[in-house]
Amino acid sequence: VQTYLDCYPCFVRQALEAARLATDDEGTIRQALDGTLAILQEMDLQSTPPEIGAAVHRLVRQVTGDADPYRAIKRTCTKHALALYPALAERVAASDDSFATAARLAIAGNIIDLGIPDAPYDGDALRLDIENVLRAPLTVDDLELLRGEIGAAQRVLYLGDNAGETVFDRLFIEQIAAPVTYVVKATPVLNDAVLEDAQQAGLDRVATLIDGGFDAPGTLLAHASPALREAWQAADVVISKGQGNLEALSQTPGRVFFLLRAKCAVIARHLGLPQGSLILKRSDAWANAS
Amino acid sequence: VQTYLDCYPCFVRQALEAARLATDDEGTIRQALDGTLAILQEMDLQSTPPEIGAAVHRLVRQVTGDADPYRAIKRTCTKHALALYPALAERVAASDDSFATAARLAIAGNIIDLGIPDAPYDGDALRLDIENVLRAPLTVDDLELLRGEIGAAQRVLYLGDNAGETVFDRLFIEQIAAPVTYVVKATPVLNDAVLEDAQQAGLDRVATLIDGGFDAPGTLLAHASPALREAWQAADVVISKGQGNLEALSQTPGRVFFLLRAKCAVIARHLGLPQGSLILKRSDAWANAS
Repeated sequence: VQTYLDCYPCFVRQALEAARLATDDEGTIRQALDGTLAILQEMDLQSTPPEIGAAVHRLVRQVTGDADPYRAIKRTCTKHALALYPALAERVAASDDSFATAARLAIAGNIIDLGIPDAPYDGDALRLDIENVLRAPLTVDDLELLRGEIGAAQRVLYLGDNAGETVFDRLFIEQIAAPVTYVVKATPVLNDAVLEDAQQAGLDRVATLIDGGFDAPGTLLAHASPALREAWQAADVVISKGQGNLEALSQTPGRVFFLLRAKCAVIARHLGLPQGSLILKRSDAWANAS
Repeated sequence: VQTYLDCYPCFVRQALEAARLATDDEGTIRQALDGTLAILQEMDLQSTPPEIGAAVHRLVRQVTGDADPYRAIKRTCTKHALALYPALAERVAASDDSFATAARLAIAGNIIDLGIPDAPYDGDALRLDIENVLRAPLTVDDLELLRGEIGAAQRVLYLGDNAGETVFDRLFIEQIAAPVTYVVKATPVLNDAVLEDAQQAGLDRVATLIDGGFDAPGTLLAHASPALREAWQAADVVISKGQGNLEALSQTPGRVFFLLRAKCAVIARHLGLPQGSLILKRSDAWANAS
């Protein structure tokens, strides 16, 4: 997925929010914004949104001197999600189809995304939203393909997305028999999970945690760490969570299952699906289209 | 009101929307966006939002070669508002307090604002919204002051805002006994009303129409036309519609009554009022605060 002109206002908004989280100093915030405008003026529209996002958030961290502006928010998101964990784990266990319920929860958890305006991340809004998603049909539903391939897999690679969403990933990973390697960001970017965030969610109990080597809000294979390169080669199935990973990997054929909610209008239009769509899609079909 | 850093994403969004209305050519749209980013990088934050908005929309018009990107939308807004006119006029006439009802309608009509994301401008949404506003209390209510001053006025100056909103202004002006001069923009900017838009709303039947001399989405007195200068001096009361005019005139003492809905978070915070507030406020109290 290339970057669309519609992404411009969103990047500026993200830079403003990140800078405000990092500092109250208006001069510093303006410096971060002006730097962001310069990045946008120079950007190649063939770049993917995670590449541009990486540059924008790196600049905000540099200008503000805050290595992780979303740290407190990420903790809150993880805390709220952990509070839901016991009841959701029971629900998965009691389900007629635990695998399907857990997969849906993993998609539902993708609502926790501070890259999106007005995303609910307080406990009550989150709970309500999850209930709605559990009742809604998937817009694209390759669940049975995923079930089959995961059932046969020796190793599964799981590309994480946001802090808090991690807890929902954990519920899903608990339903996967094969060993799972879970990829976090190497450096904080937006509210994406880094190692610490994944550990707080308890993911270290159910998966091997590695960092991907990049600080983009999406998996940039060209910048992958040796650990990610190795795990990518070894995996029979790759589970890719969220918009950022889809944007980065939409051209990647086979083996990759994208689980996400199409939260932004740009990605929904790119996919030809309604905004808000719940998606569980094997990569093949999109490889040529995007 | 000075320009806030929070206005950056909004200006970029406005430039994108205006450019998309003007052309489908992605290269041209990008040129308009890049030019907007350059304006933002160079802007003096002491400038008011209408001053920056003027520069942004002027650039979009120049780059796209479309002198009035919002023309079709403005016509639609005016048409939808005119369709409501007969019933609203009856309602004003049947009201126990026609002046108060008409003043409230003038404030209600300020919802028609393409500068704001997701503003309703189709007929049904507009009708519903107007009903809600007629029942809601004004957050700041200087109606009795306005009634007194207008009752004593020899001449009233009315600073217009958006096309479509013009029809609601007409309903209010019909309740004003003194001669009214109605100010439109000299050149199209955003969905603000120019002479043609005001005429389509039938404002020429109830007021003398003049253009203000500026192409900003708010009254810039420093750039006022001779006609506006003269009318400003002659007026006993000035009615200022909308956020843009408030942003431009918030430092102007006395005689000015601001009628608006505080639609954007920035202006609401600046005024210390909840977002969405319905405001009818004499200028004095704000002259020092802003």
